[in-house]
Amino acid sequence: METSSITSHKITRISGHDAEEFDDQLAVEEPLEIQIAFRAAGQKERKSISVTMRTPGNDHELAAGFLFTEGIIHSQSQIDGIAHSPLDENRVAVTFSAGFEPQLGSLERNFYTTSSCGVCGKASIDAIKTRSVYTNRLDGWTLEKEQLYPFLDQISQHQSTFETTGGLHASALFDISGQFLMLREDVGRHNALDKLIGAALLADRLPLDNHILLLSGRASFELIQKAAMAGIVLVAAIGAPSSLAVQLAEESGITLVGFLKKDKFNIYTGHHRIR
Amino acid sequence: METSSITSHKITRISGHDAEEFDDQLAVEEPLEIQIAFRAAGQKERKSISVTMRTPGNDHELAAGFLFTEGIIHSQSQIDGIAHSPLDENRVAVTFSAGFEPQLGSLERNFYTTSSCGVCGKASIDAIKTRSVYTNRLDGWTLEKEQLYPFLDQISQHQSTFETTGGLHASALFDISGQFLMLREDVGRHNALDKLIGAALLADRLPLDNHILLLSGRASFELIQKAAMAGIVLVAAIGAPSSLAVQLAEESGITLVGFLKKDKFNIYTGHHRIR
Repeated sequence: METSSITSHKITRISGHDAEEFDDQLAVEEPLEIQIAFRAAGQKERKSISVTMRTPGNDHELAAGFLFTEGIIHSQSQIDGIAHSPLDENRVAVTFSAGFEPQLGSLERNFYTTSSCGVCGKASIDAIKTRSVYTNRLDGWTLEKEQLYPFLDQISQHQSTFETTGGLHASALFDISGQFLMLREDVGRHNALDKLIGAALLADRLPLDNHILLLSGRASFELIQKAAMAGIVLVAAIGAPSSLAVQLAEESGITLVGFLKKDKFNIYTGHHRIR
Repeated sequence: METSSITSHKITRISGHDAEEFDDQLAVEEPLEIQIAFRAAGQKERKSISVTMRTPGNDHELAAGFLFTEGIIHSQSQIDGIAHSPLDENRVAVTFSAGFEPQLGSLERNFYTTSSCGVCGKASIDAIKTRSVYTNRLDGWTLEKEQLYPFLDQISQHQSTFETTGGLHASALFDISGQFLMLREDVGRHNALDKLIGAALLADRLPLDNHILLLSGRASFELIQKAAMAGIVLVAAIGAPSSLAVQLAEESGITLVGFLKKDKFNIYTGHHRIR
């Protein structure tokens, strides 16, 4: 039960001195409440973990990816099931497997997130730098620089909603041979990436150390943090990276590419992976 | 004591088959912890309210604007002083005036925000739609559509850091005659707007009902929410609005313009203000 990612709205289009009525397509933005359900000390517990402003669609992946990149769960096997509320399509509950009790110590109860918000709920600045569970990452591979150029064409072929609305961010995954694997879209950059990582988690395909992550916009700290959590070692962004994104990529051994265009790009960290 | 908004980083610039070393400029992204200090029941209280990933600069405005758009304070007179921590340039404390005790009921303790995050800390989805304190807004004015076209030139003249780094969002304020008043930049869209509204608050210039707000990117729900809190009735975005942004603009009586270009734009809501 998921609502559409596009909605129609009557607008006035002004061009020069002219005005005309027009049916425009908008990217849908709605809150999603993520709840977790588990047994602790023999009691059934249910907690509201986050409200994120998201584009409906792939909500289960989003919930799973969020819990993973926030460090609340560490593998697909810790999830028993994910379901929308029968009464509210903007609420999703993740039920944990028997015997798995999450460590919520570093998280505040009822913390909330929204578009592009990824470090919400951490109890201090010091806690922002979450560590990836993947330390033994496959790290022998390199890429010819020319292999990165075709990625842009592929992302625009698959980014359908953005074309229609101009309003969505995308995260896309490629394998080392340059083969397109999947793409997720959202009004929030961090949601698009959580959906992608959640999809990989639910398919039990983590870590993504032999993959390339393409970001449709800028690379912020939180996006690199999520990539690191998923074991990703090469991130290519179409936009600019921030200073803290570069710093975290360097500390995490991630190759960070920015301003990716059809025939050029910048390498910020991890130069050795690009020949 | 504020760090720079730009930092230098050595990159490899790839163009076609060529590679060259280059000193690139990055937009700085650092966490800012916002604390509040006040007296409650005779006791001194100090609470950490938020950590937001921001670009250093205008931190006092950011803290004041955040507290205002979150509904924690309602006027400049409730602030006694704002100061950076002498030990940590990424921590700022807002001391409230004697006799003012904030209502934190609807906010969770220690909630956290980051880039583009504005509804963090609300205790439920229902609480997301904060109401503006400004109900009696000056609402008689209209604008010729041609008056909007020069705004783009003006914003790019004043958006210095974006030109250098390609990495920052901006919020700019104009008066009804089309006169540029001020611009604030940040890696987070919501921070750029909080800085702008905070600057107006600290200068005791709220509400901004006889002003026009220009957004350098997309218009999300939270940006319209902040604009509504400041009493703004005309918002023009260079990017696309989301469905919930349009809905909130409609409910709040805000004129919302999207896809603003040098000679055209779309009107989503409040058509009557544009002739």
